[in-house]
Amino acid sequence: MTSQFSKKNEAWSARFSEPVSDLVKRYTASVFFDKRLAHVDIQGSLAHAEMLCFKEIISKSDYAEIVRGMAQISTEIGANEFTWQLDLEDVHLNIEKRLTEIVGDAGKRLHTGRSRNDQVATDIRLYLRGAIDDILGLLAQFRLALLDLAEKNADTIMPGFTHMQVAQPITFGHHILAYVEMFSRDAERMADCRKRVNRLPLGAAALAGTTFPIDRLRVAQTLGFDGVCQNSLDAVSDRDFAIEFCAASALIMTHISRMSEELVIWMSPRIGFIDIADRFCTGSSIMPQKKNPDVPELARGKTGRVNGHLIALLTLMKGQPLAYNKDNQEDKEPLFDTVDTITDTLRIFADMASGISVKPEAMRAAALQGYATATDLADYLVKKGLPFRDAHEAVAHAVKTCVNKGCDLSDLSLEELQAFSTLIEADIFEVLTLEGSVAARDHLGGTAPNQVRAAIARLRAEI
Amino acid sequence: MTSQFSKKNEAWSARFSEPVSDLVKRYTASVFFDKRLAHVDIQGSLAHAEMLCFKEIISKSDYAEIVRGMAQISTEIGANEFTWQLDLEDVHLNIEKRLTEIVGDAGKRLHTGRSRNDQVATDIRLYLRGAIDDILGLLAQFRLALLDLAEKNADTIMPGFTHMQVAQPITFGHHILAYVEMFSRDAERMADCRKRVNRLPLGAAALAGTTFPIDRLRVAQTLGFDGVCQNSLDAVSDRDFAIEFCAASALIMTHISRMSEELVIWMSPRIGFIDIADRFCTGSSIMPQKKNPDVPELARGKTGRVNGHLIALLTLMKGQPLAYNKDNQEDKEPLFDTVDTITDTLRIFADMASGISVKPEAMRAAALQGYATATDLADYLVKKGLPFRDAHEAVAHAVKTCVNKGCDLSDLSLEELQAFSTLIEADIFEVLTLEGSVAARDHLGGTAPNQVRAAIARLRAEI
Amino acid sequence: MTSQFSKKNEAWSARFSEPVSDLVKRYTASVFFDKRLAHVDIQGSLAHAEMLCFKEIISKSDYAEIVRGMAQISTEIGANEFTWQLDLEDVHLNIEKRLTEIVGDAGKRLHTGRSRNDQVATDIRLYLRGAIDDILGLLAQFRLALLDLAEKNADTIMPGFTHMQVAQPITFGHHILAYVEMFSRDAERMADCRKRVNRLPLGAAALAGTTFPIDRLRVAQTLGFDGVCQNSLDAVSDRDFAIEFCAASALIMTHISRMSEELVIWMSPRIGFIDIADRFCTGSSIMPQKKNPDVPELARGKTGRVNGHLIALLTLMKGQPLAYNKDNQEDKEPLFDTVDTITDTLRIFADMASGISVKPEAMRAAALQGYATATDLADYLVKKGLPFRDAHEAVAHAVKTCVNKGCDLSDLSLEELQAFSTLIEADIFEVLTLEGSVAARDHLGGTAPNQVRAAIARLRAEI
Amino acid sequence: MTSQFSKKNEAWSARFSEPVSDLVKRYTASVFFDKRLAHVDIQGSLAHAEMLCFKEIISKSDYAEIVRGMAQISTEIGANEFTWQLDLEDVHLNIEKRLTEIVGDAGKRLHTGRSRNDQVATDIRLYLRGAIDDILGLLAQFRLALLDLAEKNADTIMPGFTHMQVAQPITFGHHILAYVEMFSRDAERMADCRKRVNRLPLGAAALAGTTFPIDRLRVAQTLGFDGVCQNSLDAVSDRDFAIEFCAASALIMTHISRMSEELVIWMSPRIGFIDIADRFCTGSSIMPQKKNPDVPELARGKTGRVNGHLIALLTLMKGQPLAYNKDNQEDKEPLFDTVDTITDTLRIFADMASGISVKPEAMRAAALQGYATATDLADYLVKKGLPFRDAHEAVAHAVKTCVNKGCDLSDLSLEELQAFSTLIEADIFEVLTLEGSVAARDHLGGTAPNQVRAAIARLRAEI
Repeated sequence: MTSQFSKKNEAWSARFSEPVSDLVKRYTASVFFDKRLAHVDIQGSLAHAEMLCFKEIISKSDYAEIVRGMAQISTEIGANEFTWQLDLEDVHLNIEKRLTEIVGDAGKRLHTGRSRNDQVATDIRLYLRGAIDDILGLLAQFRLALLDLAEKNADTIMPGFTHMQVAQPITFGHHILAYVEMFSRDAERMADCRKRVNRLPLGAAALAGTTFPIDRLRVAQTLGFDGVCQNSLDAVSDRDFAIEFCAASALIMTHISRMSEELVIWMSPRIGFIDIADRFCTGSSIMPQKKNPDVPELARGKTGRVNGHLIALLTLMKGQPLAYNKDNQEDKEPLFDTVDTITDTLRIFADMASGISVKPEAMRAAALQGYATATDLADYLVKKGLPFRDAHEAVAHAVKTCVNKGCDLSDLSLEELQAFSTLIEADIFEVLTLEGSVAARDHLGGTAPNQVRAAIARLRAEI
Repeated sequence: MTSQFSKKNEAWSARFSEPVSDLVKRYTASVFFDKRLAHVDIQGSLAHAEMLCFKEIISKSDYAEIVRGMAQISTEIGANEFTWQLDLEDVHLNIEKRLTEIVGDAGKRLHTGRSRNDQVATDIRLYLRGAIDDILGLLAQFRLALLDLAEKNADTIMPGFTHMQVAQPITFGHHILAYVEMFSRDAERMADCRKRVNRLPLGAAALAGTTFPIDRLRVAQTLGFDGVCQNSLDAVSDRDFAIEFCAASALIMTHISRMSEELVIWMSPRIGFIDIADRFCTGSSIMPQKKNPDVPELARGKTGRVNGHLIALLTLMKGQPLAYNKDNQEDKEPLFDTVDTITDTLRIFADMASGISVKPEAMRAAALQGYATATDLADYLVKKGLPFRDAHEAVAHAVKTCVNKGCDLSDLSLEELQAFSTLIEADIFEVLTLEGSVAARDHLGGTAPNQVRAAIARLRAEI
Repeated sequence: MTSQFSKKNEAWSARFSEPVSDLVKRYTASVFFDKRLAHVDIQGSLAHAEMLCFKEIISKSDYAEIVRGMAQISTEIGANEFTWQLDLEDVHLNIEKRLTEIVGDAGKRLHTGRSRNDQVATDIRLYLRGAIDDILGLLAQFRLALLDLAEKNADTIMPGFTHMQVAQPITFGHHILAYVEMFSRDAERMADCRKRVNRLPLGAAALAGTTFPIDRLRVAQTLGFDGVCQNSLDAVSDRDFAIEFCAASALIMTHISRMSEELVIWMSPRIGFIDIADRFCTGSSIMPQKKNPDVPELARGKTGRVNGHLIALLTLMKGQPLAYNKDNQEDKEPLFDTVDTITDTLRIFADMASGISVKPEAMRAAALQGYATATDLADYLVKKGLPFRDAHEAVAHAVKTCVNKGCDLSDLSLEELQAFSTLIEADIFEVLTLEGSVAARDHLGGTAPNQVRAAIARLRAEI
Repeated sequence: MTSQFSKKNEAWSARFSEPVSDLVKRYTASVFFDKRLAHVDIQGSLAHAEMLCFKEIISKSDYAEIVRGMAQISTEIGANEFTWQLDLEDVHLNIEKRLTEIVGDAGKRLHTGRSRNDQVATDIRLYLRGAIDDILGLLAQFRLALLDLAEKNADTIMPGFTHMQVAQPITFGHHILAYVEMFSRDAERMADCRKRVNRLPLGAAALAGTTFPIDRLRVAQTLGFDGVCQNSLDAVSDRDFAIEFCAASALIMTHISRMSEELVIWMSPRIGFIDIADRFCTGSSIMPQKKNPDVPELARGKTGRVNGHLIALLTLMKGQPLAYNKDNQEDKEPLFDTVDTITDTLRIFADMASGISVKPEAMRAAALQGYATATDLADYLVKKGLPFRDAHEAVAHAVKTCVNKGCDLSDLSLEELQAFSTLIEADIFEVLTLEGSVAARDHLGGTAPNQVRAAIARLRAEI
């Protein structure tokens, strides 16, 4: 009896009367993208075989042969000497076929008590767990780089914007810490997602479990899973863990895109708050003077890619009846590309953070242009007893006068200021300085430099 | 000095030289959808005022007046006697204006040390926390209803499908438990999301904190928040918690859509596995015989709505510079509609679960049509010593013979079966029964009835 | 025999044994959003009745009664005196029930030869055709407003940016024309979409056509359709025309969001290229000095909403078997909200265009900061015989020298310039002026003022 | 003076003080996916050079050299002997560098009067125009294959479904024609999109046009464009044509996914309406009996991929200021993958259509199970004078009786039928046959076999 594999170019199995057409083979094969799973596929197979042996479903010698064969295959793949065959559809059959070539009947026994359905689900989870661990490391590195930048600029005053209009003075350190908070939450989300990724589907077999006396908890322990998927149909058919990962990744890219938008704006010459080191920029094929912030622009654009992959996976799962359907083969490319995009982007951003040079004089000049301390004047009036709403209105009058005169609030004389409220006294000029404004916001989460430094210390301790 | 509010139909504040145009007012106003936040807005304002009083930023009598005024406003809103004004833009200004009408200067002092930016962020988080708690309750109810259905059908045999082809026999109870697992994970995700929702942004003021000596932890405790947002810029500008909620909701709807797809297919007359009670179905305006499973169809369709809202929010945040921009006003309608869709759908599904009647004879007939026990025959051969791959091939030959003869594997005689493998003996016929097949998958997560019952007990204990 | 309608709170029809539950009624009813279709529903019914009468399927007196009843219903709806009932599910049954109340048996004959399936498809197409016509009008108005703005600024020099870095001088008029081109293509797309919207589905009945001798072409002509849907199953089940409309709308919002991004940046004080009239801006609840460009920010945010609706509809249709399924009821709200968003936004942008005041001196100052004429220098060298790539490199050296010296290219002396290339002569200083640079790009599509004026004339003629 | 290219591993140009980091090079390079544009890049460059020569901007000998060099490069690429270099970023610089190696200064003159910005926009449009032409051809092939299938089954009766409940009898030919209509509209949309794709951006240079006396109409004519982009900023920065293509593609996949859903359901054994040839199916690694409809399942899953790419591009463009930003580099991969997915899927579906075998007896049996002719009975009563609403109610009673008795309407005796309406006479039994029902829907778009045949003739003529 010839093996099932050797006849793939004849027919799928004895049950079929004609072979799969070449066009169909190419359309349905996944080996050219799922070979990325080779390492975890072997890892999963070895844990499965160890359990089969422990439960005496296969013999010790069969197990030893499988171990030997897989070691050789690992070497071949590592040395780029493994021949991936389209005819064998996917990474799983390619490896199993090669194993059978190397070790014979022992290889044919490996698939006892499992199916590709639970095998691929296990592979994806092992792969994704590793990817999440990488991403958590990169998120930590990136946050540390941002903390360094924030620390150097805990006192650097810049205008805080809302609606891209000057709102109130803040420190650049405080601004950067806003991103550290965002990426900290992203790390929380990834860690929460990891809990749901790290459950073992193996043992679900095709969809119903197997008739062999398997020990799923043993396999879970061998592979470092926190637990097992408790229902075999669910185990092989749902991909919610992958969608959750893509959603968490979309939030990372959303945060990256916001930071990128600011880096690009800050580097525009009329703003000129920062410069990004030449090694992160490129020029133009036509305009010799150009130095473009390519990295943040490209990262901002890559947000689309990750949002798209999230929609791809949600669309894919929508309305699928249980259990496994071929639609699910489409889960891999969006997932892999999301992993690549997130890891590449975080790596380059962690690196780029140290290539940002700050131009405090431009920031200061901008903070002085836009009545950034108007709220301080209103608060001053409130502390003198005026209800806030009345104080707000009084200051609006003062600002309008300044707009018409083309000067700042602090440029008005005491007499001029008193025209808006008789509560104003000489101590007002202290309040209207940028330093006074910033230092006065001295509470948990506020922009005062000592709050910024305390936050940095707390965040360093947490990472 | 006239109040800022009374002149809204003149100009925004003294700083403006012309009033907002009517078209702009309608375009930018949010009061007709954000009035849903009135209750939490008042709750947040009261906690803020209590802290202002405790810290002696406002007087005790001002605080008492604010409490009195807010009580009256709550009553007015509850009695549907509150007049919402487009001119006052949003829920916050509508309530503050009314408060000032009722209590005068005390009302004008309420906004001391805060901004609409942190106020609205607080409101959304309070609202969403409540919505998540409702959803967690509904997810529990729905799972309990499914567990009842599963328990009644722990022994009911049906065909398990992959690719909508008959794969292996399973029990209907086991199938239903797959959904219970999915909705359990959905509850986990919602609980994880709640952690990030339940942090207090109040105190961030416009973006930089405030010059008043506020106590943010006190407000957090009053309002039941687990902690405070640690950076003021981040607190007012990010909405990742809302996006995370929408992503978790999209997964709930994805699971709902899968179950709906199955309910619709199962109720199609050629399948006929279930019937759904008349009270969940409607008829046709033209075809008198129709009874349509409207509820699952509509729920399946609503998946689109929730996926759409997720994309709306991701798109909204993409590339926004810090801190607050008006774009963020668009966060509310998608969020509110997501909450409504999820709560309505879960409520109706929990109800509908008890209106599903199962037709075991149709399920059994279907399980007998498709060689559902072919894997059992292969496993039998493996246990007799044949390597799995060879067993698979032998059975494929047997299936092809049956396809040609138009009979099931169990209809073949022992002699006919032995033609495919001499390892087959008389005990094979036990293996080829549906009951034997189901009972043999007797391990954690498998479809054997006693495993199903154990899973039900475990899941009941967890809820 | 009692009417089907009067028993809705008993059971759907005689075929049902229990009434629809209240929860289900609310979940499945559409009347509170589809009543927007009342006018087109009546219009469609009248055309259908006219044909039934012409073909002698109903009597002339029945037709007269239907006309009379519908006139009364129109009046009632117009006067806001029509009572919409949840129990009657949707706009169609509400109107038909009322018709039967008014005119008796003639009303019961209206639904002859049609179904709600083809009725609602007709209504949506009539509604959407009207919405497209409105949008085409608004797109024309908006482009005319932009052409006025461009014309006033055909000579106003500003820096052209790529990567938000200064690239080459352009005119503001030329920049605005880029948007006119985009909105012209949007109008083209809407007109193309209208062709596919404007086909009549009526006559498809439930899904297969009807046994009555109807005349579909007559109805199409009465209602102003260009033709009829050629397959009854397709007519009632596909919504690709609505998705195409949402995709075209998403592109409008994409263009709006790009323009909005620029308006917001241009109004930021450090850039200060434009001011937007006060009537399109609002202030801050806390910061008295703020004047925020709310309209473009909000419009930018609304891009998310429209992208979301597009995904909602695509998700909705994905994988639906033929013909009509209840999922399709979910087509309306995304479509209606898309129409509202596009029409409101275009109306306000057409209005706002005239409220933009340009600050030419700020634009000019920015154009002088960033070596905007470097390409002109390179082109100059090419015209003197240097290959372009060598010219590019020579100018890059010159720019680097200027960066180090903190001056512009035109600030270098002839001797200094000749150090980079001996081809440079005294006529170079003409080339390095902003006016010289702009005027030199004098070809179809270029930024030279006379090209801008020619483009404006062409575009005015086209609208 | 060394060339700009030779120093790429030193610094971008003389303006830069450090080279791009390796990580950045990999992150920002596009050559490994945009080399797909090599052929159209060369085509565009040759047309540009021809015009430069015609306008005497370059010499005839330079032009001849460029033609010679490009011919050699084409050969090298065709023979897979071209060395693509990451250091040279993209397809454009790789080819230009090689050209300069081969032909020297003439190569350095090619980039005169253009920029990579207008060059890449031209390449994408040329590429996409070709892709659309391929897709139009494949859509025609596919429709022809479906028309063959429909023609063979113009009389084959099957149940028409709504809500997956039996609605009315139809013919399989009529059902298939619904898809032909959908794919015809898809072809219309692609043709409309082609009009907007087929406009020449070249001549826009970086963003403002060029100082050389170029002739854009000449280049447009050489390259087969219908016209030129009329504004240089718009020409280099908008990608709405690519988004429109992706939206049209998403609709193709939506139609494919609906057909796939039906193919999968129809092949499920309980339905059994069709069989798909073995060459389009695969088996299971564990279950020897399985034959799975992989192709339609996978195609259904690929809908997600294309919807995702659409969102990727919309997200990418959202809020981008003019003109070109690096974000736009992300336009290519989603576009290329969309083209591949659509062309592969249409090709395989056109092929698979001929591999569908129909099982008329299963269809007929299903049509008899579900009171498919109930509407015919109602119409019969209407023709006898009963108002439609009363007829509908009478038939609902009759159906309920049949449900309780477990029989079809045609199984009732005349006496039994007359109990529901005395209008019923002996001619009713003709009306209640499947053939009678189908034949009676004999109007434009109806399911009567002669209408189906007429539609096939019309559609063949159109393709």
